[in-house]
Amino acid sequence: MRTSLRRRVHEIVEVGRPGDGASRLFDTALVVLIFLNVVALILETERALYLKAPLLFDVFEASSVMVFTVEYAFRLWSCVEDPRFAHPVWGRLRFALSPMAFVDLVAILPFYLIFLGLDLRFARSFRLLRLFRVAKLGRYVVALSSIHRAIASRREELVITILVIALLLVGAAALMYFVEREAQPDAFSSIPAAMWWAVATLTTVGYGDVYPITALGRLLGAIIAILGVGLFALPAGIISSAFLDEVQRRRDEAACPERCPHCGERLDRPPDAP
Amino acid sequence: MRTSLRRRVHEIVEVGRPGDGASRLFDTALVVLIFLNVVALILETERALYLKAPLLFDVFEASSVMVFTVEYAFRLWSCVEDPRFAHPVWGRLRFALSPMAFVDLVAILPFYLIFLGLDLRFARSFRLLRLFRVAKLGRYVVALSSIHRAIASRREELVITILVIALLLVGAAALMYFVEREAQPDAFSSIPAAMWWAVATLTTVGYGDVYPITALGRLLGAIIAILGVGLFALPAGIISSAFLDEVQRRRDEAACPERCPHCGERLDRPPDAP
Amino acid sequence: MRTSLRRRVHEIVEVGRPGDGASRLFDTALVVLIFLNVVALILETERALYLKAPLLFDVFEASSVMVFTVEYAFRLWSCVEDPRFAHPVWGRLRFALSPMAFVDLVAILPFYLIFLGLDLRFARSFRLLRLFRVAKLGRYVVALSSIHRAIASRREELVITILVIALLLVGAAALMYFVEREAQPDAFSSIPAAMWWAVATLTTVGYGDVYPITALGRLLGAIIAILGVGLFALPAGIISSAFLDEVQRRRDEAACPERCPHCGERLDRPPDAP
Amino acid sequence: MRTSLRRRVHEIVEVGRPGDGASRLFDTALVVLIFLNVVALILETERALYLKAPLLFDVFEASSVMVFTVEYAFRLWSCVEDPRFAHPVWGRLRFALSPMAFVDLVAILPFYLIFLGLDLRFARSFRLLRLFRVAKLGRYVVALSSIHRAIASRREELVITILVIALLLVGAAALMYFVEREAQPDAFSSIPAAMWWAVATLTTVGYGDVYPITALGRLLGAIIAILGVGLFALPAGIISSAFLDEVQRRRDEAACPERCPHCGERLDRPPDAP
Repeated sequence: MRTSLRRRVHEIVEVGRPGDGASRLFDTALVVLIFLNVVALILETERALYLKAPLLFDVFEASSVMVFTVEYAFRLWSCVEDPRFAHPVWGRLRFALSPMAFVDLVAILPFYLIFLGLDLRFARSFRLLRLFRVAKLGRYVVALSSIHRAIASRREELVITILVIALLLVGAAALMYFVEREAQPDAFSSIPAAMWWAVATLTTVGYGDVYPITALGRLLGAIIAILGVGLFALPAGIISSAFLDEVQRRRDEAACPERCPHCGERLDRPPDAP
Repeated sequence: MRTSLRRRVHEIVEVGRPGDGASRLFDTALVVLIFLNVVALILETERALYLKAPLLFDVFEASSVMVFTVEYAFRLWSCVEDPRFAHPVWGRLRFALSPMAFVDLVAILPFYLIFLGLDLRFARSFRLLRLFRVAKLGRYVVALSSIHRAIASRREELVITILVIALLLVGAAALMYFVEREAQPDAFSSIPAAMWWAVATLTTVGYGDVYPITALGRLLGAIIAILGVGLFALPAGIISSAFLDEVQRRRDEAACPERCPHCGERLDRPPDAP
Repeated sequence: MRTSLRRRVHEIVEVGRPGDGASRLFDTALVVLIFLNVVALILETERALYLKAPLLFDVFEASSVMVFTVEYAFRLWSCVEDPRFAHPVWGRLRFALSPMAFVDLVAILPFYLIFLGLDLRFARSFRLLRLFRVAKLGRYVVALSSIHRAIASRREELVITILVIALLLVGAAALMYFVEREAQPDAFSSIPAAMWWAVATLTTVGYGDVYPITALGRLLGAIIAILGVGLFALPAGIISSAFLDEVQRRRDEAACPERCPHCGERLDRPPDAP
Repeated sequence: MRTSLRRRVHEIVEVGRPGDGASRLFDTALVVLIFLNVVALILETERALYLKAPLLFDVFEASSVMVFTVEYAFRLWSCVEDPRFAHPVWGRLRFALSPMAFVDLVAILPFYLIFLGLDLRFARSFRLLRLFRVAKLGRYVVALSSIHRAIASRREELVITILVIALLLVGAAALMYFVEREAQPDAFSSIPAAMWWAVATLTTVGYGDVYPITALGRLLGAIIAILGVGLFALPAGIISSAFLDEVQRRRDEAACPERCPHCGERLDRPPDAP
């Protein structure tokens, strides 16, 4: 009897199959809770807001951690239902070291570590680690895997482009350092400092905290900006197009899958084929 | 006799069919009047300009409202010609609650509400509501429906992209808050404050009111800018491409419509088909 | 005999056909002269540079105008060789009113008008009119006609997009004026003033002279920036893609022209067709 | 015996063929050394960092130059194995003048020239020349030749676009100079000065050091920004798309090469064909 309860728990804590109401409800509740946690954390950093209702924030935090702890415990207990983690001890250990389980652990650990008498300043930074809880969403969000696959499919272009960008960045910064360092010894004190100008210019952000003031520096800056701006837009452009291709591919697949979603047979083969 | 007059009024106030001169003239006049109203409103906020000819602005406003009021009255009176709003009372009520009729009402209401003795400061904000008159154009501008349909056709990509952008925004802001808050306790006082930096940077607007000043903050800012800039361009890029597709589709349709614009029959079916 | 000399002059001053050495040389010399004129004019505005060699600049200007005057005279004299301007008086008059001949006149007129005793300050602005000489290049530069045709081919998209942009601009400026005018009565003193912020933000230029400072203004600004940035990139994007299509089309045509470049017959018709 | 040793050295210093372990190891070591050299040079300009371990930087520099010198000597000695540089004297001389060998020389020369008693300030600039070592990577990085070929394949578009951009730049700067020079005689003192504004605006960098302040200047600036922003993105966009095409072409070629990579025969011809 206990085994079948464990199996049911396993089904519920895992991403629910269509039709399994309880499991889907659990997923939705968890996603909402994670979302609220992130919002609370963001608002909490606004000191004035936190001080208006510190108890509310603290109680919400404590109960969230409790829920996540119970969730983690249930996952650890029921994971042996998965053939990959079947062994009661080693299977559970290997499960605990899997990326998503690790994320679950990191999401609750900071709360407990605070009891270990850390000095206050360190603790405050530690609280920020709770933002990591957003990674728990990874289990549910297919979009992230789309982005991941999109990046993987264009690895070659991305490596080349980033190499070219690095060369351009170093070259632009070195030239500008050479030309402007005497007129602005503070802003262009070194090549790394000049790189800050180069990034702000080539991404077209242009904060305006650093810019060339000599005639030669402005001429150089203008040429670098006109020719370089597009190259810096390349990596993002490549990822974007790959991402849109990926969404399209997934949509095409949904319209006409390669395999039957019911029996798993390939649709492009006659039933008699081996 | 009265019914046929009402039918004619209905034809005139509705968007004119090609060939109906009076109705088309009415449409053009109304579009021009709305356009002039918006221009007047924009210029009116320039105090010095308004004070040069306050009477001109006020008289134009009053007469415009009169025209729009008469237009609204005519629409309400003649709407029963439309089978959807045939009932003299309930039909007219349902018409008055339809989006476009509601817009027509909101466009004139602020003018009359000013007589109800509101205090002056509130009234001034109220005047801005007149900008809503631009929405009256919605009846005539097909472009807006193109944009609307373009957004609807890419809902999936947009939702995913906005989710990714939100994650990137929170992540970038949290990291920067963590790194810069000690060096700049004012600009990076909280994650929401750091988000203002993140938006200005990732959209490449870069006002220059907030930027990292520590070495680590600049390194982080540079990496975030290079990798993130393109992702923020994604939603707009998706809407743009969808919008251009939509214009193309409408042009193709105009060149070879799916249905006969006269009888409404499908052109790809033989006349005898059911 | 005089007629054939006039014909030769006409051939030379018009854009040269391939193989006509003298005419091509004339074209090249003129393009170089125009280019030098523009460079001289740009440098001349740099007061320190001009004062180093005022005579050089003035002599170059005077001789350029002399050359352009002779060129204009030759064009006017020989234009009757063109069947369109055959009449000695009316033909020449109509030629003088054609766009390119008008440009030629405007390019030399400012120089002569300076003798008519204008006050000095007006004269200085007048000198800038000489920049108009760059328009003389229009005769030779095919690229400009490509751009022109590219814009014409996408007129519909451009009109719609610019309408949408105008609406977005007015909407963003009105909202921001409403939200920020109390916190920043100078920067957001009216809707037209707020439009300056809107343009700087939506084109992502972001000078940093105006930006929202209230929490609500920043939230609004962030949303406007994220959603609107791409729409402002649309008109330029449409022109760009049309321009690249145009270049491609011209290249395809060069590879396989529709008509024989020698006899002018259509290539896709058999020789016997009517 | 000596000849075969020279041949082996030649094989090793040239880019290694797949399977030649020693040659590949040499290549990798050299790329890593060049990379470390560039990093060292960048960090060295950060004075505070250099002063923490001046000996480390100097020794690394000296030993790098030694390695590069030996490499250069080996190349010069063994180049006669290449049929193009077979002659012991003239072949070697022609090799020394080839671009890559010239780069190798420039990469080590600054170090030796410093012994020739140059004054210190000049020497410091001289040290920057060492950045040129990055060009030694050219031998190994295929990506750069992709970029080079991409630019070459779109020469026509690029020339036209840069011409249009130049015209737009001059036009925008002249107009703004005309409108703003009285309100801001410093920032818009001349057309070249106004060009700095035009570049910062049209590339959307927008440092914020120069911007129009008069009403007419802002109107003009807004129109220029909206219409021109995209044209400035064109050259970079053209290079980007050509570059992506190039990567795609190389990938296609790798998937189905035109010639056999082993025997060099064309794959689309039967073995018996001449």
